[in-house]
Amino acid sequence: MKGIFSVLVENKDGVLSGISGLFARRGFNIDSLAVGETERKDVSSMTIVSTGDQRTVDQIEKHLNKKIDVIKVRRLEETKCVMLEMMLIKVNYSVTNRASLVELCSVMGAKILRVSPKSMVIELHAAPEVILDFIELVRSYGILEIQRTGVIAMSRD
Amino acid sequence: MKGIFSVLVENKDGVLSGISGLFARRGFNIDSLAVGETERKDVSSMTIVSTGDQRTVDQIEKHLNKKIDVIKVRRLEETKCVMLEMMLIKVNYSVTNRASLVELCSVMGAKILRVSPKSMVIELHAAPEVILDFIELVRSYGILEIQRTGVIAMSRD
Repeated sequence: MKGIFSVLVENKDGVLSGISGLFARRGFNIDSLAVGETERKDVSSMTIVSTGDQRTVDQIEKHLNKKIDVIKVRRLEETKCVMLEMMLIKVNYSVTNRASLVELCSVMGAKILRVSPKSMVIELHAAPEVILDFIELVRSYGILEIQRTGVIAMSRD
Repeated sequence: MKGIFSVLVENKDGVLSGISGLFARRGFNIDSLAVGETERKDVSSMTIVSTGDQRTVDQIEKHLNKKIDVIKVRRLEETKCVMLEMMLIKVNYSVTNRASLVELCSVMGAKILRVSPKSMVIELHAAPEVILDFIELVRSYGILEIQRTGVIAMSRD
């Protein structure tokens, strides 16, 4: 199962290192991690996605709650939250396949940000599985670089 | 000055903890950090944004390069790269100010993802300074929650 945690932490040195160290030490895997500022200067928010059996995911929640720099842990349900990720991807193209690449971007809701004579920088923000689909779809053009943000999630209500 | 690093690392336990530990130990600050998968299962990419004087930023680059799990470090110039961040923000609204909130989203290129009777979940992906502007602009409505991804960056060429 997927454990999706929205964690408010104190915005100071060593907090990220403490939390990622907890995952490493306990052997919990991190599928995705995003750290961002919040509306309060002294507080950061993290979205951590992990996979494991029920017991492991419960354990992660417990250990996160024990950390001194952690202000609040919320566990989100996949079906009851908005989950989004953003990707920048640089792809090769040639004159002969450019039209098909442009069409693909349009179909998938991706935005072409930069065009150089041989490559394009494309932006896509979507559910993580759509991001994966897009990567597969452009693979044949030749992928030069990928930058993904990791998932952020928010409950719908 | 801003140091923008695009770092390829091995995708295994403890790498994130090692890198965030380096920043904590040396007292380098992290403005923003995003970790994502790449097209290769065994490689992750990180975008780290830090601020400091020239010497500090040079030091960060040097220390990152020394890490065994780091495959490649690239330093990006702010003026020569695409920098984007994504945010989910949940905002209060009332019947009387709803129209102005909808209009603001439209002007700023933000997308309303969910509407409940008293709150909206809004998505915005933009340059980090635009994200900050948007937060200021909606502050008067009442911000309930913010989730930001951290910045990802890619050279234009």
